[in-house]
Amino acid sequence: MNAEILCFGTEILHGDIANTNAQYISKQLAAIGINVYYHSVVGDNHVRMEEAFRLAFTRADLVICTGGLGPTQDDITKEILAKYYQVDMTFDEESFEHVKGIYKRLNREMPESNIRQAYFPRGSIVLHNPNGTANGCIFERKGKVAVLMPGPPFEMIPMLDSQVVPYLMKFSEGVIMGEKYIVTGVGESAVEAILIDLINNQTNPTIATFAGKGRVVVRVTAKAPSQEEAKALIHPIDQEIRIRLGNKVYPADTAGIEEYASQLLLTRQLTVAVAESCTGGLVASKLISFPGMSASFLEGFITYSNHAKAERLGVRLDILNHYGAVSPQTAEEMARGVAFAAKADVGLATTGIAGPSGATEGKPVGLVYIAVYYQGKTEVRELNYPGQRASVMERAAIAVLDLMNKIIAKN
Amino acid sequence: MNAEILCFGTEILHGDIANTNAQYISKQLAAIGINVYYHSVVGDNHVRMEEAFRLAFTRADLVICTGGLGPTQDDITKEILAKYYQVDMTFDEESFEHVKGIYKRLNREMPESNIRQAYFPRGSIVLHNPNGTANGCIFERKGKVAVLMPGPPFEMIPMLDSQVVPYLMKFSEGVIMGEKYIVTGVGESAVEAILIDLINNQTNPTIATFAGKGRVVVRVTAKAPSQEEAKALIHPIDQEIRIRLGNKVYPADTAGIEEYASQLLLTRQLTVAVAESCTGGLVASKLISFPGMSASFLEGFITYSNHAKAERLGVRLDILNHYGAVSPQTAEEMARGVAFAAKADVGLATTGIAGPSGATEGKPVGLVYIAVYYQGKTEVRELNYPGQRASVMERAAIAVLDLMNKIIAKN
Repeated sequence: MNAEILCFGTEILHGDIANTNAQYISKQLAAIGINVYYHSVVGDNHVRMEEAFRLAFTRADLVICTGGLGPTQDDITKEILAKYYQVDMTFDEESFEHVKGIYKRLNREMPESNIRQAYFPRGSIVLHNPNGTANGCIFERKGKVAVLMPGPPFEMIPMLDSQVVPYLMKFSEGVIMGEKYIVTGVGESAVEAILIDLINNQTNPTIATFAGKGRVVVRVTAKAPSQEEAKALIHPIDQEIRIRLGNKVYPADTAGIEEYASQLLLTRQLTVAVAESCTGGLVASKLISFPGMSASFLEGFITYSNHAKAERLGVRLDILNHYGAVSPQTAEEMARGVAFAAKADVGLATTGIAGPSGATEGKPVGLVYIAVYYQGKTEVRELNYPGQRASVMERAAIAVLDLMNKIIAKN
Repeated sequence: MNAEILCFGTEILHGDIANTNAQYISKQLAAIGINVYYHSVVGDNHVRMEEAFRLAFTRADLVICTGGLGPTQDDITKEILAKYYQVDMTFDEESFEHVKGIYKRLNREMPESNIRQAYFPRGSIVLHNPNGTANGCIFERKGKVAVLMPGPPFEMIPMLDSQVVPYLMKFSEGVIMGEKYIVTGVGESAVEAILIDLINNQTNPTIATFAGKGRVVVRVTAKAPSQEEAKALIHPIDQEIRIRLGNKVYPADTAGIEEYASQLLLTRQLTVAVAESCTGGLVASKLISFPGMSASFLEGFITYSNHAKAERLGVRLDILNHYGAVSPQTAEEMARGVAFAAKADVGLATTGIAGPSGATEGKPVGLVYIAVYYQGKTEVRELNYPGQRASVMERAAIAVLDLMNKIIAKN
């Protein structure tokens, strides 16, 4: 089965947002062996939407649409599907109750136009949306399948994962299986150089490298009739990659550096506290974004001023005055200080110059110190990041979690 | 002139990367008044690339392609263009010197296959690429224009900005200007209801609404020969929108609720401190992501445990025991407590159940209390968010900043 991902949204054509929905859907379809041959984006224009829909069905068996399920007048995706298949729209009581329920919860009156969100092309399977008013639908006719989902990613993604992918499993032609390796502490071209003969000789599985913020991802992708056969194709390459990259590569099944950090703390039953200066809460919010972290995360301090660093974390004023707030000495005292203040097993700290201002003689924008306190010892690293404020903050937050992961894993 | 952006790249169809090129190009074309009606992505497949190219020229006058200019065998975009226009490929000496020069700089031998990067469809204008081996080209015939650029964004973007956009200026039909309105505290369909007659009568400017996390965006877009004329078209609509939406709409030139919060604090010379439970550092990191915030942001506390709430913020234990950590009373004490602890003008607090676990009798997942302390008074709001952990955290963080903005603005 071949698929096209068709996204409706003038805001994508205006460049207001990137089409991350198409990316996410592509990944999930690959995982169940459905080939994606086209991505298309058209605006909220009746004629162009209809044409795009018609075209998609001439070249794909499965058309996954996002967008145009809202309550407003330019939300017409369901109507266009109904017109294409020449069916009428029917009222779905459950969807109506769903929309009413959300308005009730928000203590707002439901505008009349929202009733449109309870109508679907006759014969649809309605897809429930726990994160918004717009339910979606699946419509299947003569071996062709249309899937309609809302545009906002936080509504679309759970719907795809929990309802659409399970439905599409019946069309799965074997699997496209990917193994992902997260590599830290080394650049993309160096990773490529280490793996170059494997990359040059690839057919199935294929091997590719991508650079991300503070990490390099190596992706090995195999296509085979079954999971077992795909795994067997990947196995020798997997072994080779792990031997060559050694401790630069994260353990298998690691979704990301942040998830791994949270899981590691919970599994080892370690408590953690965080002292952040230049990352301003990012380290804490990354850890806390995983459920159940209240068992491990005790406290976070965002100590922007010297006063707060001294008062909350016990950083000595002579250290601050002599070496400055952005120094290995301050980072070290912050990490140890926060662990003591919160009585935590692990203390994390960041201090740096995120920019664009704040640089001084010998301390350029992008200079960051990170520190991890664990088992009576504190390790500090100096980092130098190019780039913009948000990027420096993000990379520094990832780096301190990466350092913590490595320290805990080896002890 | 209408444009289609056609991106070649199997890695986009596999979901390895998002199509950020299309987003960037769309923005730049809008700025010079060229409408983008379609984005398309196809893989490195000869037949599908050719079909996509043909289709693009039937529905657009300008086709901007990215990808497929590399030295490998599946890089065939130039060849497909030549075939479509039935011209042959010619050797460009300067491009050849360019590729050789890059290899020399890297101290590597140039593989023979790279000579392909010096060939272009006869009649092309060659586009220089200072950031990689792949030069691009512009090909114009009978009022139709094809632009071919490399896929990596750091190569494509400078080429577009410095060579392609200046070339396309001759097709510029004035400008497309947009005004954006950020509306909070009201849903998308309610905003539409308020503006429905304007929306129904729209031609130029056009008016559209989009739902985002904790906000609705209204976009007014005008097309005119000059900036001044576009502004004149927008002006009466702008006035009307501001009258109708009143204090629900953010002031002009507000890039977002977070930016506005930071600017408001800095302009009013107010200091702020943040006490976060369920948002775990997100509120602080949003504020701090704007440069210069060290003048206003004093301190943040991520008080996940009751102990931390009592110890750091002075929340009374009998309040915590009697009403619970997720209660309006606790939120109020947190906001006031953090302002006192940090000696700040403004205190912000969040406490809630982000889920998926943690719900109790009468306190469902998604229940959040936010509080703002300012000028001796504390305002508390109860919020009920549907959805997932990350979404609840994000919405609550936006909501407390929005509440702060409104409180400060009216005082």
